[in-house]
Amino acid sequence: MAIIVQKYGGTSVGSVERIYNVARRVMASAQAGHQVAVVVSAMGDTTDELVSLVKSVSQNPSEREMAMVLSTGEQISIALLATALQELGCPAMSFTGAQAGVVTEGSPLSSRIIEFNAGRVKDALQNGKVAIVAGFQGADSNGEINTLGRGGSDTTAVALAAALGADTCEIYTDVDGVYTIDPRIVPEAAKLTEITYDEMLELASMGAKVLHPRAVECGKLHCVTIHVRSSFHGEEGTLVKGESNLERGTVISGIACDENQVKIAVVGVPDKPGMAARIFAALGEAQINVDLIVQSIRREGENDILFTVPDDDLAKARATLEPIVAEIGATELCIQSDVAKISVVGAGMVQHSGVAAGMFQALAAENINIEIISTSEIRISCLIAQSRLQDAARAIHQFFQMDKHPEKSNIASCHTGRNNQVCRGIQ
Amino acid sequence: MAIIVQKYGGTSVGSVERIYNVARRVMASAQAGHQVAVVVSAMGDTTDELVSLVKSVSQNPSEREMAMVLSTGEQISIALLATALQELGCPAMSFTGAQAGVVTEGSPLSSRIIEFNAGRVKDALQNGKVAIVAGFQGADSNGEINTLGRGGSDTTAVALAAALGADTCEIYTDVDGVYTIDPRIVPEAAKLTEITYDEMLELASMGAKVLHPRAVECGKLHCVTIHVRSSFHGEEGTLVKGESNLERGTVISGIACDENQVKIAVVGVPDKPGMAARIFAALGEAQINVDLIVQSIRREGENDILFTVPDDDLAKARATLEPIVAEIGATELCIQSDVAKISVVGAGMVQHSGVAAGMFQALAAENINIEIISTSEIRISCLIAQSRLQDAARAIHQFFQMDKHPEKSNIASCHTGRNNQVCRGIQ
Repeated sequence: MAIIVQKYGGTSVGSVERIYNVARRVMASAQAGHQVAVVVSAMGDTTDELVSLVKSVSQNPSEREMAMVLSTGEQISIALLATALQELGCPAMSFTGAQAGVVTEGSPLSSRIIEFNAGRVKDALQNGKVAIVAGFQGADSNGEINTLGRGGSDTTAVALAAALGADTCEIYTDVDGVYTIDPRIVPEAAKLTEITYDEMLELASMGAKVLHPRAVECGKLHCVTIHVRSSFHGEEGTLVKGESNLERGTVISGIACDENQVKIAVVGVPDKPGMAARIFAALGEAQINVDLIVQSIRREGENDILFTVPDDDLAKARATLEPIVAEIGATELCIQSDVAKISVVGAGMVQHSGVAAGMFQALAAENINIEIISTSEIRISCLIAQSRLQDAARAIHQFFQMDKHPEKSNIASCHTGRNNQVCRGIQ
Repeated sequence: MAIIVQKYGGTSVGSVERIYNVARRVMASAQAGHQVAVVVSAMGDTTDELVSLVKSVSQNPSEREMAMVLSTGEQISIALLATALQELGCPAMSFTGAQAGVVTEGSPLSSRIIEFNAGRVKDALQNGKVAIVAGFQGADSNGEINTLGRGGSDTTAVALAAALGADTCEIYTDVDGVYTIDPRIVPEAAKLTEITYDEMLELASMGAKVLHPRAVECGKLHCVTIHVRSSFHGEEGTLVKGESNLERGTVISGIACDENQVKIAVVGVPDKPGMAARIFAALGEAQINVDLIVQSIRREGENDILFTVPDDDLAKARATLEPIVAEIGATELCIQSDVAKISVVGAGMVQHSGVAAGMFQALAAENINIEIISTSEIRISCLIAQSRLQDAARAIHQFFQMDKHPEKSNIASCHTGRNNQVCRGIQ
């Protein structure tokens, strides 16, 4: 008998019919003799609707009151799923984040889980009940309701799996698993059977939406094996776990694409110490995630500082930077939004040279210009024109023959999303 | 500077515009220098919609999961009202029942408040904030979310006023105050300036919907003056308070009408000890509120036992009684639903005789038959044909000249409602 955590997203519980589909799947696991804890998101578009409701009262609501409202979305979905299970004859009990023991800290709309006191959930499991926990939320030590930010339900699930010592954490989603690249961009994309935490982290951070990077980090920290799989059928998906093979068969795991980036150039920055620090400290204070930074010499005594920020943060970034441009005596602020970031990720890069060269070669062959390059130990990212993203993705995918033997790849992919949240980067 | 508790019902916060109307009224009290705590219900028909949502998943949901869902209604309305106040520049903070310190016990959908630990609410008030508390809900000592049942928001408000030692508890409603009778039934109805707790309790329990009897009882217990007034204008309403005048000017205070009653007759009950106890113990166990009980001798060795139950409880009452009728050897169970209860209430009755005679005389003059009579120290109730209710109400109102000098009456009234909940009676 195993302890299993299952997480279902908003689409999976978007209607009464779908809630019953989830309930039947959960019940099957329970009837197979497992202890099952389930984490659910709010139904369908509930969270967006609740945001709109609050915004109809005020365009600048306090985070506290917004979190108070948003948390009701999961409170309803957990109770409906528990009710569906009970109706099917399967004992079940719902828990809000606070009741489940999710202790958070930080601002009400982007808090972090600092503790998971899963005593009540364990009791329910030991009493033969399915425990249904609200994703995306918790309460701080004063009982204040916090939300974890979008994608927080994945993190709730992985943290619960860690707290329960669960055998597996299954993330049910509307895709089959993790692909070498978003199949909507490159139809030859191959599903991966396994991927390492680090690779998944790079891919997720670089734009792959299938799993939230915070959840991957949490899984890595607590060695929770995460199984990303489809909520529409029973096939195996992709396991996200620690490195298993001593020798890797493949160098490259996956390609991530991110269209939601804006290039910002602070032109003509005086070549004095502390200029870059001044700019990025201000962006960090404004909680803007900066990625892909390049500093180039414009002419003697002046530099250009280039970087990217997510689309959503553009207005905030502009408001933050305009006074600084004046203050430090830079020439101007240039903003370019028709850019996209393409990243190649693979733990195998550590041992293999030539990946960067291959990537650049593939892009050059397609006559695609690279605007910024950034690398980590297991990733190379290039900023290119948004209109050439698909060509770039196809060229790189083909160059590295990523459609071959995907089962042997320890690799990854990705969805290009409008609401993508990049959690990493320099702050 | 006074401490004021204000309660607004679902209609008053039924839209963003209305929420702003409430916010402006609350802000005016705060700007006048008072400490203001506000209790709100869920917006408009939210509670009914949430009930329907749960019922779409299961016709027999568990009370616990239903309460989990229902409590979200107020959680949204408190946060929206707090947001509106903040938008107007008035510091405000919302509290769920659990956060406000409402400790409940009993079943999840009809729990009672056993404690109100208003420390956090007091802190907010002392920090110059308007405190906004979710009505209708609380949490038990294990953190389980409970609701108080319909009308519970009134009770939350009065209990909060007691916990804060508030100077007044204002219940804002869609009527101007308490009338001698529902003006829709008798247009000559007069608004009362004051009414005693006991009178209000009898009227509310007998069908007047303007204030929930539990709230009145709570007010009486803690000597909280309750001001029932309109949320549409600033005129004074009716004060519900302890007896103030040493001598009363009037005998009769108000008339309550209740159409939501069903007459049940258990016919041919053997004349043995314990028969009535058997019947009413079973009804009590099924949590059915029984009212107006009469036992009459049918013939030697056999009695008829007659009583009324609310419409809503009929199915449950029938299911409870049918096996008992067989078990105790009674002849049959007769159910009649075209009946109505009309009650005359007045603390002055204690010192004056002849009220019952006057009531019967007024009904006889209209040729209205009385099926059951029941009395308390300050109330006389008659069960009559539903079709004659309006005639009966007019005749009695006129007979006692209740349209005259209402300001001197210490009296009461009432609304005839389809969802009326009678909380008292024999269980």
